[in-house]
Parts: sequence; C-alpha cells; structure tokens
Amino acid sequence: MAQLYIALIHHPVLDRRGKTVTSAITSLDIHDLARAARTYGAGGVFVVHPVGEQRDFAARLLDHWRLGHGREFDSRRREALELIRVVAELDDAIAAIADSTGTRPVVVYTSARAQDGVSFAELRQRLAAPGAAPILILLGTGFGMAPGVKDRADLVLAPIRGPDDYNHLSVRSAASIILDRLRGV
Amino acid sequence: MAQLYIALIHHPVLDRRGKTVTSAITSLDIHDLARAARTYGAGGVFVVHPVGEQRDFAARLLDHWRLGHGREFDSRRREALELIRVVAELDDAIAAIADSTGTRPVVVYTSARAQDGVSFAELRQRLAAPGAAPILILLGTGFGMAPGVKDRADLVLAPIRGPDDYNHLSVRSAASIILDRLRGV
Repeated sequence: MAQLYIALIHHPVLDRRGKTVTSAITSLDIHDLARAARTYGAGGVFVVHPVGEQRDFAARLLDHWRLGHGREFDSRRREALELIRVVAELDDAIAAIADSTGTRPVVVYTSARAQDGVSFAELRQRLAAPGAAPILILLGTGFGMAPGVKDRADLVLAPIRGPDDYNHLSVRSAASIILDRLRGV
Repeated sequence: MAQLYIALIHHPVLDRRGKTVTSAITSLDIHDLARAARTYGAGGVFVVHPVGEQRDFAARLLDHWRLGHGREFDSRRREALELIRVVAELDDAIAAIADSTGTRPVVVYTSARAQDGVSFAELRQRLAAPGAAPILILLGTGFGMAPGVKDRADLVLAPIRGPDDYNHLSVRSAASIILDRLRGV
C-alpha cells in the first residue's frame, strides 16, 4: 500500500475577502492533524511555512512534547507528533518524501470550491494498488489555498460534500474526513 | 430522513489518568462542530456543561458572532453557529429535541474504547428509514466520557478505526468523521 502524506499550506492562502496572504501556524492544527494522521497510518504531516520565525514556533511546540513537560503528560500525543515535519516550501516536502520512499509523490490539490476532480473512491483505490507512488495531499489554511497552487499539483481531489451546498469545514475537520475516506476501516 | 443531533459532553469525562472530571468549554470545539454540523445538515449541536459560568462563556462567544464584530466578519460562521445550543444537562438536550421534533431521540454513546457497537452503516441506514426517530450522538471531551454515561444511552456506536490500533483522535476530528460517515454524500 502506498504511503499517504499531508502538507498543511500557510502560503499562498486566501483570506475571507479572497486576498492572498500568509496564515499563522496554530498548535491545534498541528495536534489534530498529527493525531488523525497517526490514527490512519499516514507517513507524515508537513507543516509548510515560508517564515522562519513561524517555523521556529512550530519547532518549539514540538520540542515541548518531544523533550519537555509534554513528554510525561501524554505519550500518545508524542507518538503522533513524531509524524510532523516543519518545512519552508512545498518542494521541501516533495523532496523529503522522494528521499524516504524512493519515489516522487503524486501531489493532490484540495479545495472546498473544486468544481470536480478525482473521486475519493478512485484515490483510495490508487493508494491501495501494488507499487503505487506515495501521495501528498495539500490542505490550505485560512480560506483555502490560492488557486495558483493547483498548478503545482498532479491531481485535484473532489470536494467534501454534505447534503446541501454549505461547505465551510475547518482544515482540521477536512483533514480528518479525507484521511478517513482514504484509509478508514 | 431523521434529524441528527450532537451533544458535546463536558461532565462526567475522564482525564488522562482516568479520573472523572469536568472539562472546560473551548471556542474552537464550538466553531469546528458547528461548521461540520452545518455542512452535514445536522439539526443542532448541544454544548452540555453543568457550570453556569462556563455556559455564560459559551453564550458570550455566540453573541459575539451573532450580534457583535463576528457578525460582519464571516456570515458563514454565523450561519453555522446558529446550530449551537448551550444546556446544563443531557436531559435538557433530549427534552429540546423531543420538543422540536415531537419524538424522543435515540441516544448514542461513542467511545474510542468501545469494544463493539452498532456499525456506522447500520446507523446511517436507520437514520434514512422513513419515520425514524431523531438521533442524538454523545461526544466526550477530555479523554472521553466516563463509562457511566453509557447507561443513559440507547445504543453504543462502534469506534472509529484506522488500519492499526492507535485511536486518539481529537473530539473535533471524531465529530467530523462521524458526521461524514452518517451523512456524507
């Protein structure tokens, strides 16, 4: 079975007015994504941020759980946080996956506004195929990735849908649902 | 199709050592659950807390989004937060659902540690059956509900499973996955 990775993108993302901005790293995103990734056997979660101070913040947060007080507090959190890698650029995540698996990952863009795209069933099947390349799912913070990020991707994933057209899930919810749809038992 | 409701339980819940405690309401749980509930067409989310000051905190948070600054900031959040009701006891949630639907809900206990229980497919079918009673899903904060809460429920839901035995999702992730499995398109 191919390895599944997630990249949490903080730039370029949209704000509520549709302007391209850089969002801040939040500890809760890291915790929730790490726990969901660990639950579904993902290979890793890349926290992608172009600003060094923000990456330092994330590194301190991880150190707290790896080495500091958090280490004693809850070993299951620590185990999940071992999946987190903090990088400056999407290319760093792609290179790290290629290094550790020997194969460049298939990069998958996600958006609540996607008009169509590969279905979850199809991507799940693709992941399960013998010898399949690893897959890297891009998730946008803020109000989603700037559309230009799509040009960096090999595939677009169909949007998550409920019974009507409201679709404004948190990135924590979207990540959890995507992992469950692709790897849930 | 029967209405689906969620109750977020803050007491009695377990801490990491298995001691029974009362957890604090967090704004992020409310936002994430409201957005997921709205996406999947749920009838409402009950934030259940026995302490008046904690319910007041939740009410102020909701007022901010209904009436204050947040109202202008993002109408999609406001729309989702209209699903939130803050109550003192589980019985208040059950009574409110019975009032608004005319039928006492089927109360469903959830736990990452559940040994078995009704499957997601079975509960989804049950929700879709003509004339079915509304369903109220209980979700525990902290390290999950104290086992005694199970005695208040009509059904236990099977745990969410990934490919191995790690199961330590956040309540935000668990709520999102449960809604998707029961109502996703």
